[in-house]
Amino acid sequence: MERNDLGFGQKSSSNKARFVTPDGKINVLRKGQPLIRPYDFYHSLISMSWGKFIFLVSLSFFISNLIFAGFYTFIENQALSSVNHSSLLQKYWDSFFFSVQTMTTVGYGAMSPISSWAKIISSVESFIGLLGFALVTGLLYGRFSRPEMKIRYSKNILIAPFKEGKALMFKMANQRSSKLIEAEVTMVLIANKDGNRIYHNLDLQLNKINFFALTWTVVHPINEESFFFNQTEDSLQNLDLEVVILVKAFDDSFSQTVYSHSSYTYDEFVWNAKFDTSIFQENGKMAIDLNQLDNYTKI
Amino acid sequence: MERNDLGFGQKSSSNKARFVTPDGKINVLRKGQPLIRPYDFYHSLISMSWGKFIFLVSLSFFISNLIFAGFYTFIENQALSSVNHSSLLQKYWDSFFFSVQTMTTVGYGAMSPISSWAKIISSVESFIGLLGFALVTGLLYGRFSRPEMKIRYSKNILIAPFKEGKALMFKMANQRSSKLIEAEVTMVLIANKDGNRIYHNLDLQLNKINFFALTWTVVHPINEESFFFNQTEDSLQNLDLEVVILVKAFDDSFSQTVYSHSSYTYDEFVWNAKFDTSIFQENGKMAIDLNQLDNYTKI
Amino acid sequence: MERNDLGFGQKSSSNKARFVTPDGKINVLRKGQPLIRPYDFYHSLISMSWGKFIFLVSLSFFISNLIFAGFYTFIENQALSSVNHSSLLQKYWDSFFFSVQTMTTVGYGAMSPISSWAKIISSVESFIGLLGFALVTGLLYGRFSRPEMKIRYSKNILIAPFKEGKALMFKMANQRSSKLIEAEVTMVLIANKDGNRIYHNLDLQLNKINFFALTWTVVHPINEESFFFNQTEDSLQNLDLEVVILVKAFDDSFSQTVYSHSSYTYDEFVWNAKFDTSIFQENGKMAIDLNQLDNYTKI
Amino acid sequence: MERNDLGFGQKSSSNKARFVTPDGKINVLRKGQPLIRPYDFYHSLISMSWGKFIFLVSLSFFISNLIFAGFYTFIENQALSSVNHSSLLQKYWDSFFFSVQTMTTVGYGAMSPISSWAKIISSVESFIGLLGFALVTGLLYGRFSRPEMKIRYSKNILIAPFKEGKALMFKMANQRSSKLIEAEVTMVLIANKDGNRIYHNLDLQLNKINFFALTWTVVHPINEESFFFNQTEDSLQNLDLEVVILVKAFDDSFSQTVYSHSSYTYDEFVWNAKFDTSIFQENGKMAIDLNQLDNYTKI
Repeated sequence: MERNDLGFGQKSSSNKARFVTPDGKINVLRKGQPLIRPYDFYHSLISMSWGKFIFLVSLSFFISNLIFAGFYTFIENQALSSVNHSSLLQKYWDSFFFSVQTMTTVGYGAMSPISSWAKIISSVESFIGLLGFALVTGLLYGRFSRPEMKIRYSKNILIAPFKEGKALMFKMANQRSSKLIEAEVTMVLIANKDGNRIYHNLDLQLNKINFFALTWTVVHPINEESFFFNQTEDSLQNLDLEVVILVKAFDDSFSQTVYSHSSYTYDEFVWNAKFDTSIFQENGKMAIDLNQLDNYTKI
Repeated sequence: MERNDLGFGQKSSSNKARFVTPDGKINVLRKGQPLIRPYDFYHSLISMSWGKFIFLVSLSFFISNLIFAGFYTFIENQALSSVNHSSLLQKYWDSFFFSVQTMTTVGYGAMSPISSWAKIISSVESFIGLLGFALVTGLLYGRFSRPEMKIRYSKNILIAPFKEGKALMFKMANQRSSKLIEAEVTMVLIANKDGNRIYHNLDLQLNKINFFALTWTVVHPINEESFFFNQTEDSLQNLDLEVVILVKAFDDSFSQTVYSHSSYTYDEFVWNAKFDTSIFQENGKMAIDLNQLDNYTKI
Repeated sequence: MERNDLGFGQKSSSNKARFVTPDGKINVLRKGQPLIRPYDFYHSLISMSWGKFIFLVSLSFFISNLIFAGFYTFIENQALSSVNHSSLLQKYWDSFFFSVQTMTTVGYGAMSPISSWAKIISSVESFIGLLGFALVTGLLYGRFSRPEMKIRYSKNILIAPFKEGKALMFKMANQRSSKLIEAEVTMVLIANKDGNRIYHNLDLQLNKINFFALTWTVVHPINEESFFFNQTEDSLQNLDLEVVILVKAFDDSFSQTVYSHSSYTYDEFVWNAKFDTSIFQENGKMAIDLNQLDNYTKI
Repeated sequence: MERNDLGFGQKSSSNKARFVTPDGKINVLRKGQPLIRPYDFYHSLISMSWGKFIFLVSLSFFISNLIFAGFYTFIENQALSSVNHSSLLQKYWDSFFFSVQTMTTVGYGAMSPISSWAKIISSVESFIGLLGFALVTGLLYGRFSRPEMKIRYSKNILIAPFKEGKALMFKMANQRSSKLIEAEVTMVLIANKDGNRIYHNLDLQLNKINFFALTWTVVHPINEESFFFNQTEDSLQNLDLEVVILVKAFDDSFSQTVYSHSSYTYDEFVWNAKFDTSIFQENGKMAIDLNQLDNYTKI
């Protein structure tokens, strides 16, 4: 069995913050980075929310047009045909729409560049517009096609009766309608003991399944080799326990390997309880109710 | 040999429906999901049929233009130049084509926005049009480049004579003209026995080949270790047998790992038959006839 | 050591044609396929030559415009503004350019649709045009980004002196300027012996290197375990030998795993020769001359 | 333990140049390649700097328009409407902007093709324009989505006290904000000894971590099996030492396997020093300061 080092170092600390957030982010601060990091540009555009992304694209479009409209308004008296010169604001307003029609390459032609400068600027603008929309095309594709598991983890991790003894178990569900193939789970425990940070692999009853289409109850049997063997609620209290979950699978719809991470801290442990079943029969078919994922019964 | 768990749980049921459909879908119901699942949006647009996809894109285009045409018609009396105002319908009709010319960025200019509102709306429309076609570009690429095996499985799985004994065998053909490299097959049996669902790995005579260019006869020799050893047609009758096939390979034209799944239920078993050959010689070259894939001879 | 089955079956034949062509294609005929195979559409558009691809795209563009021009010409008398009606040919000619301006969304507006049918058809055409170019965008990207090794294999495979004995060796060069990382080679021999087709793994002195940046001489030492041990030129003559080469590596510039295949038949064997060196020094740096790849000296 | 061959051959040389540059490029010359290598076209467009790429795209756009403007100017007297014929330069100038408006598909229509030749050429130009921007769309996406680790390696590699003995160690930091999952490091030593180039695997205290989010100190303990055991600064002086670093990981934001390489030559060794810590506490959270990566203290 290969040793799992999570990469958080081995010096313990008075650290009470969790290392991995429930949605799988690494909870560590990073200092000394340059403010502008081109290599993170794509990453952040791809991983921000859809709302923020669309707002950002629209804003860039709007601001670029404000700037180009400024050029057409101020650079020359008669830059464009058919523009209303009654006031500067009116001229800027008309120039703005000319700019939009140029950047989007609509080019109705009701307004068109007359002066040389206007011709040059509108040429540059239409070129920039095409490059910009090329960029957005790529980003939209990148956002859509980014393979990501959508795993819902049960809110709690239980210490439940299992065969003759006990086991640590949590449930998870695949929220996408895709098949996850050859799914593998690893469970690693982080604890503080005598001033050192220690890592423990928690062996699983079953750590790989061929299809993870719906739900999976992951079970760590508490036998003599387990860290939890003969431990009580009290003895675990002050160890800053964190159980980190690592899931790896092949996503059938993206045809790529995907990872999902989560963690449970000691507050999320429930002793002597077992999960309610979420599998039932319907018309002779196996069916699963995702709403029941978190439900458990104390015993 | 690693144990294969298909992920369907271990509690048996009165379940008569197959778990895996012949075309590889997981045949299990899913309840309690939210109606709108943004994370499944891309998946469904990528995996729907071409007909449905093109219909959906065309419909979205049509409806968007109906809506924008409404704006141009009703928002102001004189929104566009050169529009026929003889009747409201005629005005809407002309506005609709102006809308199309804006959204596609054709912009002939025969009609063009006059009023401020029309200018604003047409700006927004051309922007939305470009984003929309950017999206469609990504989706078209995603659909085309989605790596998927096209495996044709023989309709039946045979119990055929093999060496001194018998073997369970089926045939499959690679329908694409691409090479499948390092193809691997796994066969897992699901059965109901004494109220428990059991899984059995069926060991194969050969479970990996370097090139899967054409056809492959997959053979599970029925020796003492096999589940099928000393079984008869009758003894297998009531076990709700399902043989699940898992194929994994590297597709040369997509340069990605691909998976294909299928299954045979007990109705698809044929006893004492062997597959007809589909390999023949032509001009000194090896040739294969895909039409013969399903053919077998009773013995 | 895992057994390598190339997937060509085990029944021998009077077959004299090679199984794998020197450029890595599988040389087997395929019958019984439907004429139109949508699942091969993308594959063939991606793998055809650039010349053929550009010709096909241009032809589709040209023919679509011919067809749309027909609509504009024949459907109505006065479909478009500013069209020369002096002759039918002249009208078709003008309609053709209107069609081009619509499909490319240039839309100068010098010509524009007047009649309702012309408006409808031009709307459809601009929509189809955008979808078509979206498709081409995806295909161009697919063609460019398709990871493919460009390995040049030496024309001959040599039986050369090696340490105390002999070895079978060929040379290969990475023609791209990308790094190939963790490159692995496998060599499999196909032979006909007593009416059976047999496969032999040829063990290599070194079957994996970290960087395959330039050239690599692949060496199969002929020791007691080798198929070639104690064989002579005559004893190998009638075995229909074919040595199949399988190369697998990770391409640094595409960030994907890539495969390359080739083969040597018995005509391409050279006995008692060794490759000339292609490595030399230049300004204290190691340098390699790809022109020398095929050169060998008889001994 | 698998042997690592870096693929630089085994004949030693008077070679003093490093094999791998600190930023991971292979430092070997390549001769005998054809000048035009279509298979490297995409690679070079994807890996050149952003500045160079944008310059190249803009230049191609500019030159194409210069050429097309030439056609419109010289092919006929009256090719375009509304063009100023007062001088040839003025005509070329106007034709240039018509060309831009055609290639970008803006098509205001203030100028439009009159003659048959102008119509043909502008049709071809708009078609080429669309293909060109399709290409640029793909390239932009390819550049952005190209997965590449951004690892910063410490400037020096130290021989530092470690447990009871010594160890060779360097530090590295993940500069992207993405998680690197299942990161693996390999260290290989290249040395010249008695005229032969030798490779040594340097075993690591820990060669794999689950999350490489921030920094990692890679440690090769100098025990009896190490190449460095009982070596002194002087004994290593003339061996042309080079320590090659190979890092492999799965990048969470690109969902692909990525590699990074670097190397240290003997000038970059520092004896008897240890790295300053770059981990500290902030608000109960673990924090890391990337500015401290290179800092060490002599002892």
